Amino acid sequence: MHGERDIRVEEVADPVISTGRDAVVRVVASCVCGSDLWGYRGVRTITQPRRMGHEFVGVVEAVGADVRTVKTGDFVIAPFYVCDGVCVNCRNGFSTSCLHGGAWGAEVEGEGFADGGQGEAVRVPLADGTLFVVPGGQPGDALIPGLLTLSDVMCTGHHAAVSGGVREGSTVAVVGDGAVGLGAVIAAKRLGAARIVAMSRHAARQALAREFGATDIVPERGDEGIGVLKTMFDGVGPDVVLECVGTKESMDQALRSARPGGQVGFVGVPAGGPELPVPLMFGTNVGVRGGVAPVRDYMAELLPEVMDGRIQPGKVFDLTLPLSETAAAYAAMDERRATKVLLRP
Amino acid sequence: MHGERDIRVEEVADPVISTGRDAVVRVVASCVCGSDLWGYRGVRTITQPRRMGHEFVGVVEAVGADVRTVKTGDFVIAPFYVCDGVCVNCRNGFSTSCLHGGAWGAEVEGEGFADGGQGEAVRVPLADGTLFVVPGGQPGDALIPGLLTLSDVMCTGHHAAVSGGVREGSTVAVVGDGAVGLGAVIAAKRLGAARIVAMSRHAARQALAREFGATDIVPERGDEGIGVLKTMFDGVGPDVVLECVGTKESMDQALRSARPGGQVGFVGVPAGGPELPVPLMFGTNVGVRGGVAPVRDYMAELLPEVMDGRIQPGKVFDLTLPLSETAAAYAAMDERRATKVLLRP
Repeated sequence: MHGERDIRVEEVADPVISTGRDAVVRVVASCVCGSDLWGYRGVRTITQPRRMGHEFVGVVEAVGADVRTVKTGDFVIAPFYVCDGVCVNCRNGFSTSCLHGGAWGAEVEGEGFADGGQGEAVRVPLADGTLFVVPGGQPGDALIPGLLTLSDVMCTGHHAAVSGGVREGSTVAVVGDGAVGLGAVIAAKRLGAARIVAMSRHAARQALAREFGATDIVPERGDEGIGVLKTMFDGVGPDVVLECVGTKESMDQALRSARPGGQVGFVGVPAGGPELPVPLMFGTNVGVRGGVAPVRDYMAELLPEVMDGRIQPGKVFDLTLPLSETAAAYAAMDERRATKVLLRP
Repeated sequence: MHGERDIRVEEVADPVISTGRDAVVRVVASCVCGSDLWGYRGVRTITQPRRMGHEFVGVVEAVGADVRTVKTGDFVIAPFYVCDGVCVNCRNGFSTSCLHGGAWGAEVEGEGFADGGQGEAVRVPLADGTLFVVPGGQPGDALIPGLLTLSDVMCTGHHAAVSGGVREGSTVAVVGDGAVGLGAVIAAKRLGAARIVAMSRHAARQALAREFGATDIVPERGDEGIGVLKTMFDGVGPDVVLECVGTKESMDQALRSARPGGQVGFVGVPAGGPELPVPLMFGTNVGVRGGVAPVRDYMAELLPEVMDGRIQPGKVFDLTLPLSETAAAYAAMDERRATKVLLRP
C-alpha cells in the first residue's frame, strides 16, 4: 500500500531464514481485512509504503535451526500477529499482548522483518509461537477458505462471543454484518445462544447470518434499532451484544442495547477513539470486554469443527481473485461489492 | 440535609401504611454512606431538604394487607434501594434496575414516599421485594454492625469482586480503602483470591485490610502505584483490579494496572463522569464491569457468614453515635476521622 487507494503488486527479494527462530511459508491463500481499508480510505495516513496482509495459510518451506514445533512441509495457519507463545501474556491466553511479538509487514524487535501475507511467501519470526500446524498436511481446496478464517475473522468473532460471556441459553445481538460479525453469529450459535439477532440491512449478509444460526434479523440502527431489541427481549434488551464494527455509533448502540447486567463483547477496531460513558455503565451494570482477539489461542478449539464442516466460516468469502488483482480486491471490499476477498498467489 | 454541611435532626410525622404493599420498620441501626458526603461537600447541589440514609436494619412494626413474606416482629435488612423482586431485571439478579423500584428519601412512582434510613422509623414501599428477613428475629447487639453492612458496603464490595471475575487463585488489587474497598478485600478473600493487594496509605485501614485478608499493602498511587503492581505480578499486573472510589484518577489507575486480558470490577460511584478509553481497552483486552450493586440479591449468600463470624465486615464501623448527633457523624466521615459511622436511634 503506497497511499490512499494506491495498491501495487511488486516484486521483492525472496524471504530467507535469519534468526534461527523463524520460518519461511509459501502462501496458499491470503485475504483482505476490513481494517486494511482504513489506510486505503485514508482514515489512517500511510507515511511510507507498507507490505499488507495479516491473514494467510500456507506450506512451510524452510525453518530456522532453533524451531521445534514446525517443520518443512507442514500446512500452517498464521494468526494476524507474531507471538512467542511462552511469555506470561501468551501463557495467560492473550498472545496478542505477547511481550516479544509484533505485526506483519513490519519489524519485530529483535526478530527481524515479518513480511505481509498478501504475497507469495512470508518470513515468519518466532515460528514456534506464531504458526499453528494443521495436522495431516495441506487439506483439499474446499477447506482452505474456512481454515483461512481462523487467521482472523472466525476467531475474532469467537472472541467477541467469549468476551461477551455468551453461554447456553443467552440472548445475543450482533452489531455488524461484516465477516467478523458473521463469525460472531457462528460463535454465538456454537456456544449455545438461544436467540441470535443479526443487525443487518444487506440481503446477502442477512441470508448468510441466518444460515450461520441467526434467529432474527433487525435492519434498524441507532435508537430505532435499540428500541426494536428492547421490545424483542422483555422490554429490557438481550443478555449480550457483540460489537463488531468499531465506530462510536456502533459501540454506543451496543452499550445501550444490552439489558441491565448484560455485557458487550467488542472486537471492532476502535475508529476515532470513542470513549465509554462510565455513569451509564454504572447505572445499568452493563459490562464491556473485548479487544484485539488472541486468535492463536482459539485455533485448536475451532479447527476440528472447520475440518468436519460443523461450522463453515469460509462462506464469508464471496470473491476470490489472483494475487495480481489485489488492487481490485481492495476496491471490491471498499465498495461493499464483496464481504471478504480471498487472494490466491 | 438542608444544604452543604447543613445536617439537621428534625421531628416529622410518623410513617403509616398506605398502599398495602408497604411496611413500617422501626430502625435499630443505620449509617452514613460515603456517597452521602457528596451533597454534604457540595459536589452535588442540594436544591431542597432531603431525608437522608439508605442503609438500615430494624424491626417490622406494621405491614400492608398485601404483604406476603414479611410480618410484624421480623428483623429485616433494607438494601440501599427499593425493588419489587419480581420484574425481569430483579429476576435477572439486577434488582438495582427494578422496573418499579426507587430510592430512599424520595417518592417511588406509584408506591408513595420512602423515608430516609437515618431516622427512627421508615415507611418501606414494596416490602416483599425490598426487605430481607433475617431468620430468628432480632440478633444480639454484636451482630448488628455486620448485618448493617449487608445493606450496602459489604455487598457492594462483593459486587466489585463478582464483577471483576475474582475466582480461586486470582491475583487482585483493591483501589480504595474506604468501607467498600475493605468489603471488597473480604469478598476477594472468600472467593479464593491467592493474593490481595490493598492500595492504602492509612495505617488503621491498612491494618484492617490485612485482618480481612489482604496479603500486601501498596501506598503508592497513580503511575507509581501502577508500576509497583506491575513489578509484583510478572511485570504485567494482577488479574483483577477492584475500583472502589469512583474518580477519574482511580478508574484510570485501575484500568492501567490490570494485566492484559484482566478485568476491572468497579463500584465507585462515578464522580464527574469519567469516560473509558476504548482504544486502551481494545489493545489490552482489559474488561470493565460493575456498577450500582444489586445488594438485595447477595444478602442470602453472605448472611450465614456474617451470622457465624466467618466474615466480620462490621469492623468497618469505627464510630457509633446516637441519631441526635448525625451532623457529627457526617463531619467525622468528611474529615476522615472515621471510616464509617453507625447511628443508633
